[in-house]
Amino acid sequence: MNLILLTEQDFSSSNIATLDDRRFVHIRTIQKPTIGERLKIGLLNGNKGYGEVTALSDQFISLAVTLEDTPPAPLPLTLLLALPRPKMLKRILQTVSSMGVKELYLINSYRVDKSFWGSPIVESQINENLILGLEQAGDTVMPNVHLRKRFKPFVEDELPTIAQNSRALIAHPYNAKPCPPKSSEHTTLAIGPEGGFIPYEVEKLNDNGFDSVHIGERILRVENAVPALLSRLFPI
Amino acid sequence: MNLILLTEQDFSSSNIATLDDRRFVHIRTIQKPTIGERLKIGLLNGNKGYGEVTALSDQFISLAVTLEDTPPAPLPLTLLLALPRPKMLKRILQTVSSMGVKELYLINSYRVDKSFWGSPIVESQINENLILGLEQAGDTVMPNVHLRKRFKPFVEDELPTIAQNSRALIAHPYNAKPCPPKSSEHTTLAIGPEGGFIPYEVEKLNDNGFDSVHIGERILRVENAVPALLSRLFPI
Repeated sequence: MNLILLTEQDFSSSNIATLDDRRFVHIRTIQKPTIGERLKIGLLNGNKGYGEVTALSDQFISLAVTLEDTPPAPLPLTLLLALPRPKMLKRILQTVSSMGVKELYLINSYRVDKSFWGSPIVESQINENLILGLEQAGDTVMPNVHLRKRFKPFVEDELPTIAQNSRALIAHPYNAKPCPPKSSEHTTLAIGPEGGFIPYEVEKLNDNGFDSVHIGERILRVENAVPALLSRLFPI
Repeated sequence: MNLILLTEQDFSSSNIATLDDRRFVHIRTIQKPTIGERLKIGLLNGNKGYGEVTALSDQFISLAVTLEDTPPAPLPLTLLLALPRPKMLKRILQTVSSMGVKELYLINSYRVDKSFWGSPIVESQINENLILGLEQAGDTVMPNVHLRKRFKPFVEDELPTIAQNSRALIAHPYNAKPCPPKSSEHTTLAIGPEGGFIPYEVEKLNDNGFDSVHIGERILRVENAVPALLSRLFPI
């Protein structure tokens, strides 16, 4: 946790926030501050700054909060990701959130096991994993996650608008061009499931103007392909 | 498993390999080939090619193996990584192996918990995780992993020779320059533990000619920093 994320509900007055939940436990057991010390703070979907410890007990901590810094700029990216298996999804939600992705579509694909859509992570733990990513990265802006359980209607009805005026790419290691160089241009990137999109799906995406690109001869797991691609596609 | 990795011991004649272990189980339950079908094969530290199924039963599979392709080129990199906690180490060994790292030093750092050095992963599971990474990536060349349990003697006695004539970098998000552009130059890259190298360690590395570099304002977990940095530092 490189940043304590607050919400409006944590404030008891205009600038005093009081915490008694997992954030308090983290502060008390890991950061171990003393009265007067400053901790890195962010307001969810707001500014960053610091909280000066004004009270500390076994039950709670109070912070006098100053929020003057803007959060890091978002990546100019809409990410389409075939829904990963639950254990990997959890990590990938944290990864995309920590890397500055703000628009994520979790989509179906032939090789996505149907049971994945009913997992507790999809049902109720998306936001908590996104928040872990923001706390790790030192960001405050919550990503938007959209679930699309049917591939064809999504690609035919929604994708043309989503991908409009953007660099549209599929990460696909076969019959592909090398990944294009860094650019600040808005990008729509589709990443398939373990085993890849099937030819029909690649074709549908190609028909929508998506170029197949690769990042080398080696086939990476999705959890490594995501940071490798994001790091390669955008300037720092 | 995008490649079945064989060793010399799997061959019963000059070109026939017979498998009855976890590779056989994977082939039988996931790939489900028929007689005559070709599977992607590699020889550990040797060439890649295919194996044509010549026999298949409930107990074993036999393959007629042809190995005519060279494995992907290694990354021109020596990676120094503060020993991660065991669960993350397992994934990172697979990651570095799948991304083409061939020289990995797992080193100590102030923030590495001493207990990590006694974990079963460090004691006996390094090679099996490296092999999983090779099978994922479609590579055959086993990385060399070196354990260095004392930071100071490693940095003072060994590192000058290791880092000689290379681009020497520490991934360190504070007081750092932006990560340099892609290059095929030999690189020595040091990545700290969760929480980072302590100032003394950064200073020792800086004194050895290592430049501190960052990949943006956001602080990434080690498991994401590794693919993000490797992807940024080297051409495809």
